[in-house]
Amino acid sequence: MNLLPQTKKNLKYAFTPKSVAVIGASREPGKVGHVILQNYIDGGYSGRLYPVNKNADSVMGLKCYKSVLDIKKSVDLAVIALPAPVVPGVLEECGKAGVKSAVVVSGGFAEVGNADLQEEIVKIAKKYNIAMIGPNCLGVVDPRSRVDTLFLPTYKLSKPKIGGVSFVAQSGAVGSVVLDLIAKEGFGISKFISYGNAAYVDEVDILEYLMHDNETKVIVMYIEGVNRGKDFIEIAKKITKVKPVVIIKGGMTAEGGVAAHSHTAAIAGSSEAYDAVFRQFGFSQAKDLSELLHFAKIFDSEPLPKGNRIAIITNGGGMGVLTTDEVYINGFVLSDFSNDTKSKLRAVMPQIVNIRNPLDLAGDADEERYGKALDLVTKDPNVDMVIVIILFQTPGADSSVAEKVISYKEVSDKPMIVISVGTDYTQMHKTMMESAGLPVYDSPAAATRSLAELLKYAKYLSRKN
Amino acid sequence: MNLLPQTKKNLKYAFTPKSVAVIGASREPGKVGHVILQNYIDGGYSGRLYPVNKNADSVMGLKCYKSVLDIKKSVDLAVIALPAPVVPGVLEECGKAGVKSAVVVSGGFAEVGNADLQEEIVKIAKKYNIAMIGPNCLGVVDPRSRVDTLFLPTYKLSKPKIGGVSFVAQSGAVGSVVLDLIAKEGFGISKFISYGNAAYVDEVDILEYLMHDNETKVIVMYIEGVNRGKDFIEIAKKITKVKPVVIIKGGMTAEGGVAAHSHTAAIAGSSEAYDAVFRQFGFSQAKDLSELLHFAKIFDSEPLPKGNRIAIITNGGGMGVLTTDEVYINGFVLSDFSNDTKSKLRAVMPQIVNIRNPLDLAGDADEERYGKALDLVTKDPNVDMVIVIILFQTPGADSSVAEKVISYKEVSDKPMIVISVGTDYTQMHKTMMESAGLPVYDSPAAATRSLAELLKYAKYLSRKN
Repeated sequence: MNLLPQTKKNLKYAFTPKSVAVIGASREPGKVGHVILQNYIDGGYSGRLYPVNKNADSVMGLKCYKSVLDIKKSVDLAVIALPAPVVPGVLEECGKAGVKSAVVVSGGFAEVGNADLQEEIVKIAKKYNIAMIGPNCLGVVDPRSRVDTLFLPTYKLSKPKIGGVSFVAQSGAVGSVVLDLIAKEGFGISKFISYGNAAYVDEVDILEYLMHDNETKVIVMYIEGVNRGKDFIEIAKKITKVKPVVIIKGGMTAEGGVAAHSHTAAIAGSSEAYDAVFRQFGFSQAKDLSELLHFAKIFDSEPLPKGNRIAIITNGGGMGVLTTDEVYINGFVLSDFSNDTKSKLRAVMPQIVNIRNPLDLAGDADEERYGKALDLVTKDPNVDMVIVIILFQTPGADSSVAEKVISYKEVSDKPMIVISVGTDYTQMHKTMMESAGLPVYDSPAAATRSLAELLKYAKYLSRKN
Repeated sequence: MNLLPQTKKNLKYAFTPKSVAVIGASREPGKVGHVILQNYIDGGYSGRLYPVNKNADSVMGLKCYKSVLDIKKSVDLAVIALPAPVVPGVLEECGKAGVKSAVVVSGGFAEVGNADLQEEIVKIAKKYNIAMIGPNCLGVVDPRSRVDTLFLPTYKLSKPKIGGVSFVAQSGAVGSVVLDLIAKEGFGISKFISYGNAAYVDEVDILEYLMHDNETKVIVMYIEGVNRGKDFIEIAKKITKVKPVVIIKGGMTAEGGVAAHSHTAAIAGSSEAYDAVFRQFGFSQAKDLSELLHFAKIFDSEPLPKGNRIAIITNGGGMGVLTTDEVYINGFVLSDFSNDTKSKLRAVMPQIVNIRNPLDLAGDADEERYGKALDLVTKDPNVDMVIVIILFQTPGADSSVAEKVISYKEVSDKPMIVISVGTDYTQMHKTMMESAGLPVYDSPAAATRSLAELLKYAKYLSRKN
């Protein structure tokens, strides 16, 4: 295998730099170089921070340097927010100053036809061994090290908490949208990287880094194309044996591919070829951004299932019907409860409850009834996975039901997920359950498709090992 | 055609009653009969309200009657919240008192095997010509008349505003969930009806009523089965010529059908047969509850498209790529802008903007750039529909962009929808745009599939007329 050794492109310096230079730091609010410096200060970054601007002596109360060469101390990461034509000169200075990694946020390179200019900065990055991310990108976020090179105002998007999901996005816009969405989910992130034109650091480098990153449990990706097909296949083969990868590829149609090329200069390539690689190596393919989050959530929190038999516990008959449909559409079966479970359920359930799967506890089900059902159903040897539907609109469903389900989640070694659909009162309980590590889905389709990906991955691993 | 004439089952008395008796009105908070009466009082119902409870003289400050026979004034609607075994006697009294419609919320009939008891109340309803809805249902909501028979605490679900969408749900749980969800959407409702076991008033009666209801612009349905197949086909044939119907059927798989039978005693029937009927008569089939709302929203607000050529305007390249993929997956094409549009765009757009479709205005696009693009693109004769992507996470996107898009929406006669994805800041703008009649979707797939349903319906109508 001919991958560049991971240490060669020093990505660790981009994610956990001890010192950051913001080149193009500006005193003018609204300017990219202003927003980036402001975000570092507001975000509580504790390393050394060096604004660089040849026309200023100080920016936001920090001493400002004319050039990165004037800093005279080691710089792990340079964030470059200057017009494209001046980037080569600045990057050359970074090289001379021994800067170890760089994020070039500037656009105006290959994506608008300036391939030569892009080639020029790649040469400089290679010459000085600078792990250069971009150009035409948002860069990196690491909530542990508080690195954040995004030039987006903080009030416009929420930022996720610390967690185990790393998100790799070729597109800055898709990246920022997904970051914003993750902030409202129960899971947190380890690393975020938007790498734009992938001129030097590309998806292969990033995947190799994240494969070895102990803080990353699940990898989620949006890509528009890959630069090094063979190397991508090599890393794809290895990485899913170590951790799950959820992927969505833009440009899967011919016309989408054309749009992708105009966006990040990516060669989208044949969708069949990508699809084949993703399938062969156990990637989870999401069909839209919501599904990307749904899959990330289940991989982040759930153990792998032992089989494909699902139990459904519900307080709404119609939702039980719709979920049953999805269970069979997605290739699962409903568990046939053991005779022992059935007779015990019959003894403890009121007469209106039919002892069958889906187990419809009826609209007046409260925490006691949920508890009795969970106690028997989670232990049934015929059950591999449990879907608990809680419609919080019903009279009996309140926080005590949520707490009860959480308590069974904590002791069960089977995948267990919740479906709850609704607005304020429901969302409050969603947050409560997800904070306790119990994933909540807002539709039978989303829940069941996520379980299907979990099972598919479990099968992939068992075939490969 | 052998439908029962609409006037025979007096559904109008259920939706717009001048007087309501709550039979089983209770002084005990938490009891169904308490919640229903409380909701009428809190909801500001302005007709006459009669609590009926043989053990009370007054309930919540209202004079209480021992029997509906004691009221001695005309009662348009009786809401019956009493145990199943006493319902026949009470309904008989309603008949004698001349009550015109009834909602039997009580369960314990055919859905748990008590078919005889159900047959008994159907006979009584027929004998006295009472439009009986249920049993085992939530009943009706009409925000105009402020009728609300739901026995669900108001803090647990939000209620939609007045609007043009009527929602028909066989399942109470699905009904309440969807009502709750609609409350956060830009559109409002005309009528809501959860009809449970469909023992007497069934989907055919309801569709016939809603077909003639001027306040209903779009019909949305969740059904688990139909009682009168031939009559259903007759009404299906007529209704979609008058207004669009969006439908989701529970029990489309064999196993889901079994679950449906245990839920509302419905005979789910062959999914192929249902699918064929829905297709033949131009119903829009949603694959989940989210899609039900997405389709309702587009039918409620958008004109029918003249063709299948879509323009995409975006401030995020990756979202443009994903949307392009969806456009082609869903059978549309991207418009080829006219030469006039292209040359005018070239004159007014900055150099970083490629003059093509999708038109990527770049991450710093502001209201001025959106305005210039909208002005030219919406008027292009090669454009049938417009998708505007606004990622509010980007520096240039704020309320002025939303206002600009609204202003073009107001003058354009083409379908125009927005894709915006994100949390707080984005949701604020979603609310703003939807209040102005501009539908906002949270994914390229949702947006494009909704446009596809709109086009399919337009084609259905043009074939039929």
